[in-house]
Amino acid sequence: MRLSFEEIKKEIKRVFLKYGVPEEKAEICARIHTESTNDGIYSHGTGRVARFVDYIKKGWVDVHAEPVIVKEEGALCILDGNLGIGITNALTAADKGMELAKKYGVGLVGLRNTTHWMRGGSYGLYAANKGFIAFMWTNTESIMPPWGGKEVRLGNNPVVMAVPRKKGESPLMMDMAVSQYAYGKLAMTRLAGKKLPFPGGYDKNGVLTDDPGAIEESQRILPMGYWKGSTFSFMLDILAAVLSDGLGAVDLDHNGKGSCGGASQVMILMDPSKTKSLPEMETFIERSVAHLKSAALSENSTGILAPGDDYVHFREEHAKLGIFVEDVIWNEILAL
Amino acid sequence: MRLSFEEIKKEIKRVFLKYGVPEEKAEICARIHTESTNDGIYSHGTGRVARFVDYIKKGWVDVHAEPVIVKEEGALCILDGNLGIGITNALTAADKGMELAKKYGVGLVGLRNTTHWMRGGSYGLYAANKGFIAFMWTNTESIMPPWGGKEVRLGNNPVVMAVPRKKGESPLMMDMAVSQYAYGKLAMTRLAGKKLPFPGGYDKNGVLTDDPGAIEESQRILPMGYWKGSTFSFMLDILAAVLSDGLGAVDLDHNGKGSCGGASQVMILMDPSKTKSLPEMETFIERSVAHLKSAALSENSTGILAPGDDYVHFREEHAKLGIFVEDVIWNEILAL
Repeated sequence: MRLSFEEIKKEIKRVFLKYGVPEEKAEICARIHTESTNDGIYSHGTGRVARFVDYIKKGWVDVHAEPVIVKEEGALCILDGNLGIGITNALTAADKGMELAKKYGVGLVGLRNTTHWMRGGSYGLYAANKGFIAFMWTNTESIMPPWGGKEVRLGNNPVVMAVPRKKGESPLMMDMAVSQYAYGKLAMTRLAGKKLPFPGGYDKNGVLTDDPGAIEESQRILPMGYWKGSTFSFMLDILAAVLSDGLGAVDLDHNGKGSCGGASQVMILMDPSKTKSLPEMETFIERSVAHLKSAALSENSTGILAPGDDYVHFREEHAKLGIFVEDVIWNEILAL
Repeated sequence: MRLSFEEIKKEIKRVFLKYGVPEEKAEICARIHTESTNDGIYSHGTGRVARFVDYIKKGWVDVHAEPVIVKEEGALCILDGNLGIGITNALTAADKGMELAKKYGVGLVGLRNTTHWMRGGSYGLYAANKGFIAFMWTNTESIMPPWGGKEVRLGNNPVVMAVPRKKGESPLMMDMAVSQYAYGKLAMTRLAGKKLPFPGGYDKNGVLTDDPGAIEESQRILPMGYWKGSTFSFMLDILAAVLSDGLGAVDLDHNGKGSCGGASQVMILMDPSKTKSLPEMETFIERSVAHLKSAALSENSTGILAPGDDYVHFREEHAKLGIFVEDVIWNEILAL
């Protein structure tokens, strides 16, 4: 089904209000969920509304809690999210980071005791659209075995990097989980009766496989780059917990508050106007993107993408045809 | 061959002095090369002495140049490395970052116009041994095709993360290039007549392969995590160049000063004593490492490693048996 931005946002907001989210937060969260959907990240837009409501009902998200500053020293700040709404907590942290970056060139905010931020890229785009460079990540409960192990001990710990471009042009943006595939991708691929394009994990006998169902069964999903992603994920978790004085996977795994309930996040914001003139930066990025795309295409290539081309593509398609929402997801939201 | 730390360092220092490196820098660089060798990173320790000398001879490294501060605003600083020695430039940047982190909680140094830093992990360990958390990366000239392309446009852009542990215990440390394998690994595997453990690139016909020689021929080495590493590498390059007001791959590819000649680096240093009490941090890390290693081992597993266990293992072995140096490499150094 195809709907307008306003139609989607209005319906999500209605649901959030119904489940007790205060007016202002409901407006913000409905907008972020709709933006994610508009950017093609359906799984974390319309696809997460029902789960968010479920978490409210279970008491895992406190819709009235506000993030508070627990420590501020120079360019470093720790916020306690008090298990409030992940979206508004993350926006507050990004705002604080930009305030610090404006003052000190760089600002680092550790946000602890927060809840699922939905699409991490939202905060990268938010900051880059205000002229800041963003480097952010969240830890999560474990969903991935470490290299050499077969039981989950590592989060997928999404990492976001974003850089502003020319006025009116969409920022460069990377939003990357450290697992090779998301469990959502495994399920979708299985339901379509297909195989993964590359091996995504081990089956229960320890054989590397591109069969999504076998990986869902074993829960032995691969980190990106095998041993490399395993180490990267662990370090991201340690840094997130230490820099926010919050919880790491070792605690989140027993926290019992759902996906990312109690998670720790790091947001590093930088003011590029302090390092390079903005026109120079814009020209440099244009040259770099052109250089990237100047490579001869590989066999069966659909083209070379710069980070962010994917969401721009979805926006353009949605602007023309309306925003895509799966019928089953839309009916789920209507029924809430 | 097995040699002592002092034997190796003395010989490397002799070489550096012979080729005009000033006394103090020769001592520091010889120590760093020897430490890398002692930590098992032979390729970037003893294995890089001859190439470094070659770069001096070609005028690609100016052994007399000193890094200078070109901008300092709050917690952000830009250093120009003036194409001086990569090791001493990087140590100066790390020192500056720690100074800023001590004052502001976090410090970000952009180092431009530098040369090859050899083993990036050296600077992570350097900072972590002084009690700081480090997040650092360098860009490089292109050695890897972007996803969807078959000509190289991306650097391997090594990323370093390090976290201090208890006094006397070796820091957690990750030192990870964004390519799945280094070209050195391909050559070694080919010379041993073996296959890679996992596909490492495409052959010249675009077929994914674990044959190292075929990848060396095509130069179509894989990023870690396929499309994920491709995006990550590009973003690291952009951030390094923008935050140091330095060169990106688009320029390094035509810079003609060898591997990493003119590269840009970012060093983010954080003072964990400002976020968490140190005993709490130490306990948290111990619990996290124990949690990681508590996973049941997979089939044929040689164990689960925490980041840094590998270099500690080499240090222990070298302390017992002497430091390993390949005969051919040692003779190469002696002949310089």
